[in-house]
Amino acid sequence: MAGNTFGQLFRITTFGESHGEAIGVIVDGCPAQVDIDLDFIQAELDKRKPGQSKITTQRKEADTVKILSGTFEGKTTGTPIAMIIPNEDQRSKDYGHNVDVFRPSHADYTYFTKYGIRDHRGGGRSSARETAARVAAGALAKLFLKTQGIEIAAHVSSVGKLNAPAVTIDDVESFIARRESNIVRCADAATAETMIEFIDEVRKDGDTVGGKVSCYVKNCPVGLGEPVFDKLHADLGKAMLSINAVHGFEFGSGFAGSEMRGSQHNDIFIAPSASNTGVKTATNFSGGIQGGISNGMPIEFKVAFKPVATIMHNQETINSKGEAAEISGKGRHDPCVVPRAVPIVEAMAALVLADHVLRNRAAKV
Amino acid sequence: MAGNTFGQLFRITTFGESHGEAIGVIVDGCPAQVDIDLDFIQAELDKRKPGQSKITTQRKEADTVKILSGTFEGKTTGTPIAMIIPNEDQRSKDYGHNVDVFRPSHADYTYFTKYGIRDHRGGGRSSARETAARVAAGALAKLFLKTQGIEIAAHVSSVGKLNAPAVTIDDVESFIARRESNIVRCADAATAETMIEFIDEVRKDGDTVGGKVSCYVKNCPVGLGEPVFDKLHADLGKAMLSINAVHGFEFGSGFAGSEMRGSQHNDIFIAPSASNTGVKTATNFSGGIQGGISNGMPIEFKVAFKPVATIMHNQETINSKGEAAEISGKGRHDPCVVPRAVPIVEAMAALVLADHVLRNRAAKV
Amino acid sequence: MAGNTFGQLFRITTFGESHGEAIGVIVDGCPAQVDIDLDFIQAELDKRKPGQSKITTQRKEADTVKILSGTFEGKTTGTPIAMIIPNEDQRSKDYGHNVDVFRPSHADYTYFTKYGIRDHRGGGRSSARETAARVAAGALAKLFLKTQGIEIAAHVSSVGKLNAPAVTIDDVESFIARRESNIVRCADAATAETMIEFIDEVRKDGDTVGGKVSCYVKNCPVGLGEPVFDKLHADLGKAMLSINAVHGFEFGSGFAGSEMRGSQHNDIFIAPSASNTGVKTATNFSGGIQGGISNGMPIEFKVAFKPVATIMHNQETINSKGEAAEISGKGRHDPCVVPRAVPIVEAMAALVLADHVLRNRAAKV
Amino acid sequence: MAGNTFGQLFRITTFGESHGEAIGVIVDGCPAQVDIDLDFIQAELDKRKPGQSKITTQRKEADTVKILSGTFEGKTTGTPIAMIIPNEDQRSKDYGHNVDVFRPSHADYTYFTKYGIRDHRGGGRSSARETAARVAAGALAKLFLKTQGIEIAAHVSSVGKLNAPAVTIDDVESFIARRESNIVRCADAATAETMIEFIDEVRKDGDTVGGKVSCYVKNCPVGLGEPVFDKLHADLGKAMLSINAVHGFEFGSGFAGSEMRGSQHNDIFIAPSASNTGVKTATNFSGGIQGGISNGMPIEFKVAFKPVATIMHNQETINSKGEAAEISGKGRHDPCVVPRAVPIVEAMAALVLADHVLRNRAAKV
Repeated sequence: MAGNTFGQLFRITTFGESHGEAIGVIVDGCPAQVDIDLDFIQAELDKRKPGQSKITTQRKEADTVKILSGTFEGKTTGTPIAMIIPNEDQRSKDYGHNVDVFRPSHADYTYFTKYGIRDHRGGGRSSARETAARVAAGALAKLFLKTQGIEIAAHVSSVGKLNAPAVTIDDVESFIARRESNIVRCADAATAETMIEFIDEVRKDGDTVGGKVSCYVKNCPVGLGEPVFDKLHADLGKAMLSINAVHGFEFGSGFAGSEMRGSQHNDIFIAPSASNTGVKTATNFSGGIQGGISNGMPIEFKVAFKPVATIMHNQETINSKGEAAEISGKGRHDPCVVPRAVPIVEAMAALVLADHVLRNRAAKV
Repeated sequence: MAGNTFGQLFRITTFGESHGEAIGVIVDGCPAQVDIDLDFIQAELDKRKPGQSKITTQRKEADTVKILSGTFEGKTTGTPIAMIIPNEDQRSKDYGHNVDVFRPSHADYTYFTKYGIRDHRGGGRSSARETAARVAAGALAKLFLKTQGIEIAAHVSSVGKLNAPAVTIDDVESFIARRESNIVRCADAATAETMIEFIDEVRKDGDTVGGKVSCYVKNCPVGLGEPVFDKLHADLGKAMLSINAVHGFEFGSGFAGSEMRGSQHNDIFIAPSASNTGVKTATNFSGGIQGGISNGMPIEFKVAFKPVATIMHNQETINSKGEAAEISGKGRHDPCVVPRAVPIVEAMAALVLADHVLRNRAAKV
Repeated sequence: MAGNTFGQLFRITTFGESHGEAIGVIVDGCPAQVDIDLDFIQAELDKRKPGQSKITTQRKEADTVKILSGTFEGKTTGTPIAMIIPNEDQRSKDYGHNVDVFRPSHADYTYFTKYGIRDHRGGGRSSARETAARVAAGALAKLFLKTQGIEIAAHVSSVGKLNAPAVTIDDVESFIARRESNIVRCADAATAETMIEFIDEVRKDGDTVGGKVSCYVKNCPVGLGEPVFDKLHADLGKAMLSINAVHGFEFGSGFAGSEMRGSQHNDIFIAPSASNTGVKTATNFSGGIQGGISNGMPIEFKVAFKPVATIMHNQETINSKGEAAEISGKGRHDPCVVPRAVPIVEAMAALVLADHVLRNRAAKV
Repeated sequence: MAGNTFGQLFRITTFGESHGEAIGVIVDGCPAQVDIDLDFIQAELDKRKPGQSKITTQRKEADTVKILSGTFEGKTTGTPIAMIIPNEDQRSKDYGHNVDVFRPSHADYTYFTKYGIRDHRGGGRSSARETAARVAAGALAKLFLKTQGIEIAAHVSSVGKLNAPAVTIDDVESFIARRESNIVRCADAATAETMIEFIDEVRKDGDTVGGKVSCYVKNCPVGLGEPVFDKLHADLGKAMLSINAVHGFEFGSGFAGSEMRGSQHNDIFIAPSASNTGVKTATNFSGGIQGGISNGMPIEFKVAFKPVATIMHNQETINSKGEAAEISGKGRHDPCVVPRAVPIVEAMAALVLADHVLRNRAAKV
């Protein structure tokens, strides 16, 4: 209930602060007999780690993951899988100047008021560093989903007001290759270039900017999602909104759909035929989910990230006594969070889907 | 796990199909000693009930709620409160023509495939009728929140492309009075008039249209919300996305925030002063929530509803054998769901807040 | 969290007070396509209902169950199944004399102190009347377990110091027939007779007496139960201890096992052979459960019930102001609870097993 | 749902196998501002660790605990507290001879059948080594309970057929001192001596023997426990039954109570007086719990442990192909588990109480 657990049957519990000994996660409920590919898990973490390019924070952390339990001879055993990632580059002194000051649009004030105590170093528990544990767990979820044929791919679809053109994903592997060919993780090469230039400019201003990540799930079977509260998109939405800096979630037609008419918006079913194995729909405004349950079409959703709150400007604020104070911009932070958010969005999606694959096993006698 | 339960400490479980005996809800975890105001609960339901105006479905259901347990001499006792709403106007025959046909953009196909069986009458469990149970439970949550001073108010902020001007809510009571003065439930009288005309026109076309509901929470104490997965806005998001026809959720700056720079977006803290009791922020792009925890500012979020899928046109589709079929538009349905969605959005918000008020009691020794 | 829900995947939530409108239950997570046999459900309730013989309370309640949702054309649909049992014989006036007095060894004092309010009529929520809802839900669980071949049978193995000889159950149907042939529900006819005489004598004294129920599960597949906290016997134990008046639980060798040596107690595995399909053990001190997981042998456990607290004698006590008071013995109560507890024990066992059958589906890829 | 989590608000999730890298636990929901006493936590672990006396296994493990997160400047911060205990003395080779053979009355066969794979080294996840993580978490729970004035004390009340006389605990500290003055952890010195001799004799026979642990909770406030499924004793029962080798649980009058009459068994309330602050009962057959809720009297329960399954004799068994096989008795094991079980019983009791203290905060407005 203290909120550090996510999922029902495929369930993770994360721990760790930005500047503590280590962060980590226990994955409980991963079925037995999943092949463990530690290189894959590490590669996923590497996409999230700091210091990977000029448009991310220059902090350096290897973020090397270690599995402590739950596997035997390269396979999962059905018992809890604990993974830890030691904290290495803990320049706590970078934070010394802010010990008693609440950073604007950070969680300092709310944590301090809620708990009456706070670990001020680097945001403590509220640091986005916690998401590394999610990525490790999500990588495990992907390995499980692979046994079910389900694939997930996300990319940066906008930075500030720069939007990538709409994509369709035929082949997940090549889509990811396209995305990984540039440091902003946008599958459209031309847009990627503009985005990178823009972020670099923002960074030089000592400022930050928001963006959006779009995510796609392919080969999802019909039937995932539970009525009425645990609709597949409701669980995806919660998963995404739990990521640091996320301010919005939409799936299928999303906010734009609220401006449409039913006669435009309805996805007409197409019967299976020689050229069409399985039921399809002519359009996909439903985003692959109807009545909260996957319908076999690609699942599509979008996640909006606000600009990072830490900027290199001085700002007015208050201290823990409630007095006016000033905060100076120091430390090493991301000018735009979305390139590193891509693996986090995928990880959370993988966790939701793995959970619902297992939950769906209880649907029928 | 089958998904019909929402909340952790203030927890509801709903039951019932559109055309069964009754729908209802058990509220478990409502603290003892809340004054029960049955008239208030019924009044909330009346805002959701069908047939209330020319721009809602013409089905007639009294939706009279009955409390079966959990109260004694006008107060809650701490034990589960069961409420039922009998189904009255069950014209199952209206649905006879669609027994074996999957309605486009409904849950017919997904339910049938998931469970291998479905109650085809009026959508069965996937019918928005289920939300009446949520409104009853939400009314109870509001009675509890009243003991904490927390108030909630929503209104229709857009219908199709018609948008109401931004509102600020000083007084919740008068805001709700303004909203209730028109049948579309928009607090801006001029916009309301245009919206009503537009919906009426859409209805005459046999078509439907989407819209948005904006919701505000006043007097929320600092500290509600749990790191890291059960952030207050993540739980609000899940709650909203679990409502039928919702395709998007945003809070604070939302999707627009993803286009902003940090230097614009940061909410600067203002120290308490003679004219300002308590910590405030100069702006509220955070939407009253920082790091997933309420910061004492008004909570603000927006919910996007797709157009209702049932239209009065004939549409191509498939049947349960996967063969091409046609569906005719019959029955009595809403041309636009948002006027009736306002009390549902408020109810779900109330349930999330009630839950987090109780959860927050465990934060400190 | 308020404790009125039991189970994870096959989950029930009960509601209702002794003297309210109705009691009932929502079963959430019962798989789709279970054949509903309403007569069977009612027959199970009839075994628990008051007034069925001279050795039970003389209160009369038909305890007629009504299904409100979740079934369609005689089958479950995968959606929540709500069942209610109206309260009929509500002689609240019988309780008028005890409004302000705490009955010894009842829950009056603890409920009043916990909640600051209590429904004094017949024990309110703490009344064993709540278990009728469990029996209805358990009957549904049995119908699901039938599809898996799992059978459950319990009987009264002792009343006071009168103990039935040990039983082995080859055929569940005939065992239940033997048990049902007498009003005390003991499968051993000779012991049953002595027990009935003894209870009748106790009843005439205006007194009550405790007893034990033994329960057996046949054809349980290997693999039910989850390490490490949700061991099958731990969930069975919790289920039984949650029944009113239960003071002890043991399985397999139980308390006696704590006096044995390992060399006696170990259950030696026997390889499958011509005369022995499947792995067996030579003895069954493990009670069908090893490491918390069913091993395919019959599951065996025993439940101890204290004597009913309501006696027909005057007793000293205190009132809600904490002052000394006297309580007189009135009302209509059971001299011994175990004959009516048999269907309750079976119901709770069925709920635990149904839950673990579904949970076990997530064990492997 | 995979069963490695215990508790609702004060919640633990354990991980780790007997012969993996490490075992550990995440404690989620421990309130902020609890003083962390690492020496106390380690001292609790030392009571459980192997090799502590001649009547425990001669394996040597330091069982040194390390806190990875959730504390700051000596206090809890409200965020998850991860603790790990590295595995040191992993003589996996001791188990090489049993790779493919199922040990009688162990969990080898059930785990292998459930998951299709098993870590055969030392019982893997089913090893009682997992309970070290519980003891660490329980120590934290005790530190929290200390802030509430609640104290817990257990001791060995029987070994085989040797029973200690009944105890009353006036002062928890001196009771624990008495218990710790001997290696069998029985508070009665004379019985302790006989027990030690007996266990030593059993050990020399290469055999094992069962026993019982009795546990007492002092200064528990009225009101802990939730109707109807999460009765305090039901949660205590589940907690105890989840400990390795436990076959029975009883509280208050327990199994003996089932032989009593109501007129003997009822605990008569005594009004507060000059010599008696607060409500008391004349007897305590209820074991401090009425209607599932603590009544302010001492809580008393007893836990029965079967004899350890690993004996130094050769035994017939089967292998993973279902063929007859023989198992030889090697390795280093406990002749009697109860002396080391005392801290485990206390830890689980502390976890249940901590959880219910927090849950009870939601009882009233």
